[in-house]
Amino acid sequence: MSVTARQIVLARRPEGAPRAADFALREVPLAEPRSGEVLVRNLWLSIDPYMRLYMAGSGSIHGSVALGEAMPGGAVGEVIASASNALPVGALVISMAHGWRDHYLAPAEKLQPVSAEVGPVQRYLGLYGLTGITAWGGIHGVLEPQPGETLFVNAAAGAVGSVAVQLAKRAGARVIASAGSAEKCAWVRELGADHAIDYRGEDLAARLAELAPEGLACAFDNVGGVQLEILIDAMAPQGRIALCGAIALYDSDNYRAGPRNLFAAIEKHVALTGFNAGFYFARAPAIIADLAAAEAEGALVNHETVIEGLAAMPQGFVDLLRGACRGKMLVRV
Amino acid sequence: MSVTARQIVLARRPEGAPRAADFALREVPLAEPRSGEVLVRNLWLSIDPYMRLYMAGSGSIHGSVALGEAMPGGAVGEVIASASNALPVGALVISMAHGWRDHYLAPAEKLQPVSAEVGPVQRYLGLYGLTGITAWGGIHGVLEPQPGETLFVNAAAGAVGSVAVQLAKRAGARVIASAGSAEKCAWVRELGADHAIDYRGEDLAARLAELAPEGLACAFDNVGGVQLEILIDAMAPQGRIALCGAIALYDSDNYRAGPRNLFAAIEKHVALTGFNAGFYFARAPAIIADLAAAEAEGALVNHETVIEGLAAMPQGFVDLLRGACRGKMLVRV
Repeated sequence: MSVTARQIVLARRPEGAPRAADFALREVPLAEPRSGEVLVRNLWLSIDPYMRLYMAGSGSIHGSVALGEAMPGGAVGEVIASASNALPVGALVISMAHGWRDHYLAPAEKLQPVSAEVGPVQRYLGLYGLTGITAWGGIHGVLEPQPGETLFVNAAAGAVGSVAVQLAKRAGARVIASAGSAEKCAWVRELGADHAIDYRGEDLAARLAELAPEGLACAFDNVGGVQLEILIDAMAPQGRIALCGAIALYDSDNYRAGPRNLFAAIEKHVALTGFNAGFYFARAPAIIADLAAAEAEGALVNHETVIEGLAAMPQGFVDLLRGACRGKMLVRV
Repeated sequence: MSVTARQIVLARRPEGAPRAADFALREVPLAEPRSGEVLVRNLWLSIDPYMRLYMAGSGSIHGSVALGEAMPGGAVGEVIASASNALPVGALVISMAHGWRDHYLAPAEKLQPVSAEVGPVQRYLGLYGLTGITAWGGIHGVLEPQPGETLFVNAAAGAVGSVAVQLAKRAGARVIASAGSAEKCAWVRELGADHAIDYRGEDLAARLAELAPEGLACAFDNVGGVQLEILIDAMAPQGRIALCGAIALYDSDNYRAGPRNLFAAIEKHVALTGFNAGFYFARAPAIIADLAAAEAEGALVNHETVIEGLAAMPQGFVDLLRGACRGKMLVRV
């Protein structure tokens, strides 16, 4: 069995914010699986802010994607042809590399089987995958909020942020969140945030000073840039910041840049700890069990924004980076 | 009893590196102590890199010193006239504010009595004071090196750095140090560093890659700026950095600036924790006892560079910032 795969490729490197026209759809015939390989039909694809980094030029230390090459990303699919005893036809598999396409060939050993019995399989791209493990790592691996501590989360209507808000509330923290519209703020309050700040319509620094006059004990930073600078100034002595991402900088000349006020960390004994989900994958079974328990308790709502069809993926990604999304963004292929 | 005090005042704000001519000597008559006050004759004054921050203009969040005002700093002195039952004539006291002068008046309650019985009193400005407590806080409060871990210290021939090297060795770490000359490196090796890199004569990044090919577990950063960027790139996954100071930036437009590669902390799960001695003063008795134990074991050598006379203090400070000093710099008044 062989198929023609449709892939989204990088057509040009964006200057500033990416546009849908920076991508193109390409058709590629796939051979039959050779020994040890499987042919997979993707069911769900993940859209994540970090993918912006693949679009940068060779200066990026992230694996920069060559022009004309398919974008990488997470995907859940079904094996439709197999030359591997490990993964028979019908097996469901997750790949962290073979997103942005409808079919792919890969060695079975590079794929992770998943079970549909525990619920909707796209969850392995979100709550039980990169998104949930990232949020869990930031809250429980890095920040470890104690009951009553004030914890701030930005990009709180996003995939990771919305889970982080809920995990922090479940840990007993008082949660202040920020998001980019009044509607998103209302939703974040529904998720349990004690306060939500519309950073576009309100003065984030002033509102933090009002809501946390003694400073923030913890902050979960998805945004970087000026927002990180505001957070550093808003931290309480001996506060701790989990650095998760820097979406505000991904379109800039140097997304790796630090804040202009790092010295405040010396003055206030503040810790900035970077992290990513990769450091928590080894503990994934226990983390997923904890996330499932939180869901069962009603403490964790998993919200998905679903894009229909591969062709709509570039625009979905552009919209994600503009903040036009709640929770986890997924493509149903 | 009244005296005329000699004070070093800030005569002009430096552009770039300070010069001795940025200071001036001023004579100020002091009144007799009023109720609760004491008149103190300083014996020893502390010279520390952080004092550079007082010379900046009003943009500094450090208490900027007004032109014509005396510089603040640490001092150990003897009460020579007293209107306080708490501090009789002859008492030895430490002040963190009344340095850079030979006499001062102050409320007794603002001063801390010290005993000459435990050894040379100037030690309360160094090993048993700001310097030792800073080094201890960075090593044992922040980094907590485990036996066999590789720990890097820069400005390692300086007051804090030279103590940090020795405390890290005592904790069982493998220590790589850097300093600004071959002579200072030789001294740092005498103190116990396993390796010392002359960052002026050698390529720091290349030497770190050679000496710690798997990366640094811990780093104690006194320098900031480009050296901090090199450290971040040299850290092992899950490494931790104690941010103590940023002497490389104190002459720049913004000494508070963060590194241009902070995002690497996200990629490698690296923690940058700022700290200063103020957060450890509450534990000072236990910390001083530990430092004294280290000295008694022969694991900690306290080295002082002594400047003779108040008038020589400005040049001493300028020399300190240029790196022309080993260990703790003190002025004998």
